[in-house]
Amino acid sequence: MDKIPNNIPSDVFNVILCRRSVRSYKKDPLPSGVIDKMLEAASWAPSGLNNQPWRFMVITQDSQKESLARFTKYGSVIKSAPVIIVVCMDIGESYNREKDLMSIGACIQNMMLQAYSMGIGTCWLGEIVNKKEKVAASLKLDSDLEVVAVVAAGYPQEKGFKGCRKPLTELKL
Amino acid sequence: MDKIPNNIPSDVFNVILCRRSVRSYKKDPLPSGVIDKMLEAASWAPSGLNNQPWRFMVITQDSQKESLARFTKYGSVIKSAPVIIVVCMDIGESYNREKDLMSIGACIQNMMLQAYSMGIGTCWLGEIVNKKEKVAASLKLDSDLEVVAVVAAGYPQEKGFKGCRKPLTELKL
Repeated sequence: MDKIPNNIPSDVFNVILCRRSVRSYKKDPLPSGVIDKMLEAASWAPSGLNNQPWRFMVITQDSQKESLARFTKYGSVIKSAPVIIVVCMDIGESYNREKDLMSIGACIQNMMLQAYSMGIGTCWLGEIVNKKEKVAASLKLDSDLEVVAVVAAGYPQEKGFKGCRKPLTELKL
Repeated sequence: MDKIPNNIPSDVFNVILCRRSVRSYKKDPLPSGVIDKMLEAASWAPSGLNNQPWRFMVITQDSQKESLARFTKYGSVIKSAPVIIVVCMDIGESYNREKDLMSIGACIQNMMLQAYSMGIGTCWLGEIVNKKEKVAASLKLDSDLEVVAVVAAGYPQEKGFKGCRKPLTELKL
């Protein structure tokens, strides 16, 4: 929390507009409090009948990241990030597959907005889901858990947040 | 923008935690600038290959709201709200149905967080999607557009934002 760079906006509109996918990270680990705050934000997404179908596996071990990286052409992003969050749908809790997927999309967005507001870069990896059965087997996931996305997270390399707009307060004369 | 009540938090974490579904609204219309800001926030969601599959129809006419209300058991929410946003997926732009649905979930979450940060209540209505073909016909939507959600929006009745946490600045002695 003490590392938030001063170019990160604090209001929701600019956080939404300035968040970008970050694909290259510093090696610094993320404090566990920061990861928990991302997951807590994620967990406050709305879901149909409030079924909260999302589950999260947090991966920080290099050996596990290397295993995961083999299942996607974006493996370099996975290997670069200090933290990988595997986002699963709990099939046992699902009430409507398509609506549950939309809710999990909302949940991932919360996670990424919260991360960005703390100066942490993220990247939502979807291509790896094409091999979700292999990913699940590699992670020894329960059969009720389906991998629906992977989010990489870490402090961005210097150019990570390009494209961010200046706040109006800096533009108005 | 001049109507934001002073109990709305400004930081992302508390906006995420305090947002609630609002099902009863004041009759006041929403200024068009406010609706545009909700849609602009929505449009900055991430999507696979940046395909941006979301499309929005903004409905404010009572006659159209009454037509829509017939397709859901939550019709009273639709009739109460000054603004209804019908969220569609552009099938022609879709590259992967399930990933596109997740992106649209992220897009809706952006819309609702931005609304809340401006003191506007929203409700994500999913049940009406069970009759999406009838909704599309009623709205004369192009065949490329599939209704995936409906979002009601308006200034909440007094008890709209119950459950909101106090900011830490109010709790720390």
